Amino acid sequence: MPRQRPDTVHAGKAPVGRPPTMPAPRATILGAAAKLFAANGFDGTSLNDVAQAVGVTKAAVYHYFPTKKDIFDEMVVDLLERQYLAVGAAITAAPEPDEKLKAFMQTQAIFFETNYAAFVVMLHGFGGVERNHWTDEQLALRDRFEKLLRSLLADGKAAGTFAIDDVAIAARAVLSLMNWMVRWFRPEGEVRAEDFALQYHSLIVSGLQPRK
Amino acid sequence: MPRQRPDTVHAGKAPVGRPPTMPAPRATILGAAAKLFAANGFDGTSLNDVAQAVGVTKAAVYHYFPTKKDIFDEMVVDLLERQYLAVGAAITAAPEPDEKLKAFMQTQAIFFETNYAAFVVMLHGFGGVERNHWTDEQLALRDRFEKLLRSLLADGKAAGTFAIDDVAIAARAVLSLMNWMVRWFRPEGEVRAEDFALQYHSLIVSGLQPRK
Repeated sequence: MPRQRPDTVHAGKAPVGRPPTMPAPRATILGAAAKLFAANGFDGTSLNDVAQAVGVTKAAVYHYFPTKKDIFDEMVVDLLERQYLAVGAAITAAPEPDEKLKAFMQTQAIFFETNYAAFVVMLHGFGGVERNHWTDEQLALRDRFEKLLRSLLADGKAAGTFAIDDVAIAARAVLSLMNWMVRWFRPEGEVRAEDFALQYHSLIVSGLQPRK
Repeated sequence: MPRQRPDTVHAGKAPVGRPPTMPAPRATILGAAAKLFAANGFDGTSLNDVAQAVGVTKAAVYHYFPTKKDIFDEMVVDLLERQYLAVGAAITAAPEPDEKLKAFMQTQAIFFETNYAAFVVMLHGFGGVERNHWTDEQLALRDRFEKLLRSLLADGKAAGTFAIDDVAIAARAVLSLMNWMVRWFRPEGEVRAEDFALQYHSLIVSGLQPRK
């Protein structure tokens, strides 16, 4: 039977070196990898672990992502692009600076909780600080998001809604509150990330000192 | 020469399996390991890397720390104990709640910068969130430090110095500002951690909303 190629003899079983048919393969692999990287770290997860979680061969994963780092890279770019769209839309819809800041924090928290595993991977997937694992594209997307917040705060300062000495420091403070959540927030807990964000918003707008 | 034991024949040269003479061996190993773990993560560092950095054999490191995790554990306990003493002394010396909060943030930042590598290891040495790498002793020390801050804020609330809805949330906000520094602060930069902490203190005490 010369016309039947060896790698298609066993229909329904994935031949070595060829990807099996699966719906939305890239998204499926990214989703499984996010959970594994989030739980055990980038270094603590192998491409084989990812393949097993998806239920395909390692070769099938290789077909879509030649290296583990390619999975990380696509996950982060996808996350940052969707975050910018979601949070950007929310602040555009809010009428004035304080409402925009509230929308920024609230929407970011909802987005964070909805995409919890990928966030943990992005912000806490690697141990150590000196490994240069962010690409220029990712750094540019991250900076674009930070600029969205700085611009919102600067507008609020110009309008007299906010009294801010240093917009960059204020933006960093807001992002610190949000980002540190990857270290203590538990999706299975009783309080939603959005509720913590609203409490933080109140706190940072009012300050600890009583208003006279 | 039956009275001379084989492992002491070569005086001045470290025999395999026996530690060489070095001053303050535990502190020396912890210091070298802190830098390596901070740069490359816990998983990205081997006991052999640590031995090479100290300039001894792997067996010499084993003599003091049977596993890599033992190094991490002693590093974190030591750090948390010294942090509690340093920050505790500073807030005891400060006269009233707002000065105490300022002392807490300022002293913690100085302590963080002085012990930068060990802090990075403690807060960002491992990738992923589900690895249960903190011992009960470490968790108790961490909680003791957080209680120090909560108690300070609660005293300030009772005295009318602070208007705080939820002391736990306010404490978490302060710690988020401080802890996220492990991800962006660069010791080689121009601004000291202490100066960032003082700006954060001002920001969180006054709030973004202008004071009438």
